[in-house]
Amino acid sequence: MSQALANVNGEIQPLEDVRISVLDRGFLFGDAVYEVIRVYGGKPFLIDEHLRRLSQSMESIRLEGADMRDIIARINGTINAGEFQEAIVYIQITRGSAPRKHAFPENYQPFQLIWVQPFQDAYADARQNGASVVTTPDIRWHRCDIKSTNLLGNVLGAQVAAEAGCMEAIFYREDGTLTEGSHTNLFGVRDGAIVTAPRSNAILPGITRELISRLAEQAAIPMIEDYLRRDELSTLSELFVSGTTSEVMPVVRIDDQTIGDGKPGPVTRRLQEAYAKAVQEFL
Amino acid sequence: MSQALANVNGEIQPLEDVRISVLDRGFLFGDAVYEVIRVYGGKPFLIDEHLRRLSQSMESIRLEGADMRDIIARINGTINAGEFQEAIVYIQITRGSAPRKHAFPENYQPFQLIWVQPFQDAYADARQNGASVVTTPDIRWHRCDIKSTNLLGNVLGAQVAAEAGCMEAIFYREDGTLTEGSHTNLFGVRDGAIVTAPRSNAILPGITRELISRLAEQAAIPMIEDYLRRDELSTLSELFVSGTTSEVMPVVRIDDQTIGDGKPGPVTRRLQEAYAKAVQEFL
Repeated sequence: MSQALANVNGEIQPLEDVRISVLDRGFLFGDAVYEVIRVYGGKPFLIDEHLRRLSQSMESIRLEGADMRDIIARINGTINAGEFQEAIVYIQITRGSAPRKHAFPENYQPFQLIWVQPFQDAYADARQNGASVVTTPDIRWHRCDIKSTNLLGNVLGAQVAAEAGCMEAIFYREDGTLTEGSHTNLFGVRDGAIVTAPRSNAILPGITRELISRLAEQAAIPMIEDYLRRDELSTLSELFVSGTTSEVMPVVRIDDQTIGDGKPGPVTRRLQEAYAKAVQEFL
Repeated sequence: MSQALANVNGEIQPLEDVRISVLDRGFLFGDAVYEVIRVYGGKPFLIDEHLRRLSQSMESIRLEGADMRDIIARINGTINAGEFQEAIVYIQITRGSAPRKHAFPENYQPFQLIWVQPFQDAYADARQNGASVVTTPDIRWHRCDIKSTNLLGNVLGAQVAAEAGCMEAIFYREDGTLTEGSHTNLFGVRDGAIVTAPRSNAILPGITRELISRLAEQAAIPMIEDYLRRDELSTLSELFVSGTTSEVMPVVRIDDQTIGDGKPGPVTRRLQEAYAKAVQEFL
């Protein structure tokens, strides 16, 4: 992390030096939203889409006072200052510091943190050979469409996965439907069609998920919005997850169940190629 | 807040000077638990009960490495250092700083923050004359029994209340049952008995709630654990909320409904007197 550069309310400094008041509402209440953007070849990928979602998250929690043009300028300025090539941008906006009281403070100034760090690819092997994942109950709140820092449910899920030697935890609800992963969206292939959970309060509207939807359409692969079910996993021909840093990651094992023949399937491979092509075209 | 004193990992300093890394997991993930303790006459009230709950919260999220004897010593040391009399103690334990990754870091050191600030009683009038509250959907996660800093649902609820000119927001679920307030537990009087939500994952096991249960028993007032329902509010003779700082606070209006005759009722008054007596005996 020593190479990571931050931009705090417009000022560039090493990430490891950035300090905030413990009275920041992001620290006390999780009163904050965030984004993660992938930088390929020095350029932030799908930045408009990420910042549109950031705006939506802010609107959903009524967090005001951050200007998206400033944020774009700061992102680019920080990438340039560090001469980052393969990197990730992290953005977190909080409702600022105030005496501790649940309701919004009057006249707050949002705390605007951006940092850029070199991308370290933890997914390379899994992207090639397929990942193992586990399922775990979805205990999160009812507004998973908001990309907030209330991530304790995600943290506990990811820890279950880590202890099982797996790359990701997939959340299931009491009715047996699968929503998404602790930091990815989930897709299956059912009867030749890609199936992913509908946009709702139960999932994050993933930027990579949206890209996959466009890529599938271009490739004439049918895609429908429907919940995958835990009890149909054995019948799916393919399973994969998507995310800003995991991109398109095949899943070949879930709990004690092997998906298909235990290797990444053809639909997943086509989407991986289409994703790589989209990045190439972007560069 | 200028008089507030903090104790950070054992070191006393003014609260307003305390700074943490933005890589603290409390800031990035809400990977943290907390407590609020009321100090009467320089002595922390029900400290054992609060620290027992803190231990339970830590255990629930598997946060290790904080010693309760250290925390007790630091609380008392900070109260004494500031010569606090009527005050509140805030405690927050996070899983410390680490490169951002959902699963637990290896060998983390918890960040242990305690602060003491003078108690400013925002509830005095409402405690005397009764409060107005609003109901709002319960959008929180499935582990409200853990006192974590994933409080965005509570923040948004409290803001709904504040904008309605009310003291508190009471959460209701899709089935019409009421769970608790954004920072209080809820009680009603139904057919002469106190009714409050059962201990479960849906509510915080309030320390004041437990005290009320003991006080009701001593006063031979029947008390049962059952969910109050939104559609029975008009039939309740009394309604009140409890909390560490609100103590026993009568509710005389909820949404557009007046409770009883619009004044604090006799059961609530008896509990307020019993609460005051318990504090007197403690001093």
